[in-house]
Parts: sequence; structure tokens; C-alpha cells
Amino acid sequence: MARWEPGARDRLVVAAVDLFTEQGYDATTVTEIAERAGVTKSTFFRHFPDKRELLVAGQDALSELLADGIREAPEGSGALACVQAGLERASTMMGPTNRDLGPRIRAAVAASEALQERDALKSVGLAAAMTDALRARGHTDLVAHLAAELGVLAFKRGYAAWADTESDELAPYVVSALEELRSASAALD
Amino acid sequence: MARWEPGARDRLVVAAVDLFTEQGYDATTVTEIAERAGVTKSTFFRHFPDKRELLVAGQDALSELLADGIREAPEGSGALACVQAGLERASTMMGPTNRDLGPRIRAAVAASEALQERDALKSVGLAAAMTDALRARGHTDLVAHLAAELGVLAFKRGYAAWADTESDELAPYVVSALEELRSASAALD
Repeated sequence: MARWEPGARDRLVVAAVDLFTEQGYDATTVTEIAERAGVTKSTFFRHFPDKRELLVAGQDALSELLADGIREAPEGSGALACVQAGLERASTMMGPTNRDLGPRIRAAVAASEALQERDALKSVGLAAAMTDALRARGHTDLVAHLAAELGVLAFKRGYAAWADTESDELAPYVVSALEELRSASAALD
Repeated sequence: MARWEPGARDRLVVAAVDLFTEQGYDATTVTEIAERAGVTKSTFFRHFPDKRELLVAGQDALSELLADGIREAPEGSGALACVQAGLERASTMMGPTNRDLGPRIRAAVAASEALQERDALKSVGLAAAMTDALRARGHTDLVAHLAAELGVLAFKRGYAAWADTESDELAPYVVSALEELRSASAALD
């Protein structure tokens, strides 16, 4: 009987990030990641299709939460208010493990072109999810695209700011980053 | 003696886009692209490292022109005025062939995850080039990131609008898209 594995998924991500940092992404195998995490290879493959997807895992869930938050924002909300609702909803997915892993994941991504590509496509996917949800609320294509890009930027900047703190909550940092971007947008010349 | 090949590079891009449209990106080989373009495989490899790079060819040149334009904008220019200067400079790279290929390239990219990833990374690269050039002019990290993202969005939207015209000049469409984004940014709520 398989024993219950608390946090196998988290352990796999931590092990992968450690190994990518120590020996590089290209040199790291799924077998090594599973061994380091203390799980079998088939447990790895129950959670992730390959090592490349591991670092962007949760993208679909994140996209859904962003879209849900936008869809359920109060009637008459402006585009950025909708985006804020989406970001707050999506932030609930992230806990202290994500906060602590953030900087190391960014370092691993920066060191590997394969991961950079996957990460870039993830950002495009999140922006598209928000753009579609904003359009569905009747915002113009222009405003939807613009607000979605600001949302992605706010999520990245808020996440980076969160990493330097002891806080367990991502949402305030993302909301504050969005507010900064809103002010800076209004002042652009 | 090798005969002079006018526009071999352009012919290769046109041939590749045709083949990607007809039979899909995955099913298309470098040999087929070279044959369709009427050049040898070694001519292909003089221009491109592989079929995936073909559709984002010119990214480095584009990044340099964006950065040059930003660097050389008049002293005291605001961040968006710098971005506009960069976009105008980069637009000089694009001619009628680019205009006509644009929609077909977008269709090929939309149909292939490998191309989507490469295309997403290209956007990240262009944004990074603009962000760095804006920071070097003394703009804050926040403003530099924001203005660069608007620049990428303006380039994409302007390029898409240009495709529906007979105009040989991309610049006016990109400048107009940037102006639209500037107005929309100021009005975001």
C-alpha cells in the first residue's frame, strides 16, 4: 500500500530548485529530483509531465483564479479594479513555500533559456486569461490588454517584494504593486 | 562560384510561413523550406540556426534599434517619448514583406506551442532591451518596466493594424498605438 506523502509536490519543487541551483537545469534529471525529494519517479510523473513544467506548475489554476476574481468583481468595477480582484484571488494560492522559493526559482529561470521560454509563455498565458475575462465584462480590447499587462507586471513585482519579507500573505504586496503601476501610468510622459 | 542570391533570407521566411500554414510547423523540415525557397540547405543555415529561429529572426537587431532610439532621444524626454523614439527607429527595419507576412506568421505561431514559447521569449527580450535603455537614462525601475511593456504592446498592436493597410511604413501605426495606450493608461480605473 502506498504510504501517504504529505507535501510530495512541494518537496519535488524544492528538490528541483536545489538541484538546478547546484548543478544547472540541463544537467538535472527527473530521477535525481525524485531521489532528492524522497519519492519515486512515478510520484514525480503523477505531479508533473517533465522537469520543465515543474517550475510553472499551477499556471492553469492561477489563470482560473485570475479569471474568477475578474468575473466576480462588483458590477461597474473599472478594469484595474477587476484586475485587482483577480490578483487577490490568485494570491490565495501562494503560501510561505512559494515566497521562499521565489528568488531561487527566478535564479534558475535566469540561468536556463529553456526555462526562460517556458516562463515567458506562462506570463503570456496569465495575461491572456485576464484579457479574456476583462473583455467578457465589456471592457474594450485596448483597455483589456493594457490592464492585463499591468496585472502581470503587478503580480511579478509584488511577488518579488514579498520574497524579502516574513509575511505569509502575497496579496498586499501585489495590490500595492498594482497601485504603484496605476500611479506611474497616470504620470507617464 | 556561388551565384548572387537576392533576398534569399526573405524567400526562406516566405517559404517557411507557407509550409507552416499548409502542413504545420512540426511536420515541416529545413530541407523542405530550402527547396521551396529555391536555395540550398547550407544557404538556410547561413541565415538561421534552425526553423524555430526563423520566425523571430532579427530580434537582436530590433532590440538594438529600440535601445539606440531610446538612448538618442532628446535630453529631458519622458519615458514614453523615449519609447516612441525607440519604436520609430525599430520600425525602419520593417518593409512591405514584413507587413504582408505578419498575419500569416501570427497564425503559424498560434498553431504551435514551440513557436509560441519562442515568440513569448522574444517579447520579453524586447521589453528587457527597452527597460535597460530607459534605466540608463535615469528613469526609475518602475517607470522603465512600465513604459517598456507599453512599448511592446504598442509594437504588436501597431504591427497588427499595419497588416490591414497598403502603407509601406510601420512607424505611424506603432506611434498611433502608443498614443492610444497612453490615453487609455491615464484613464484606467
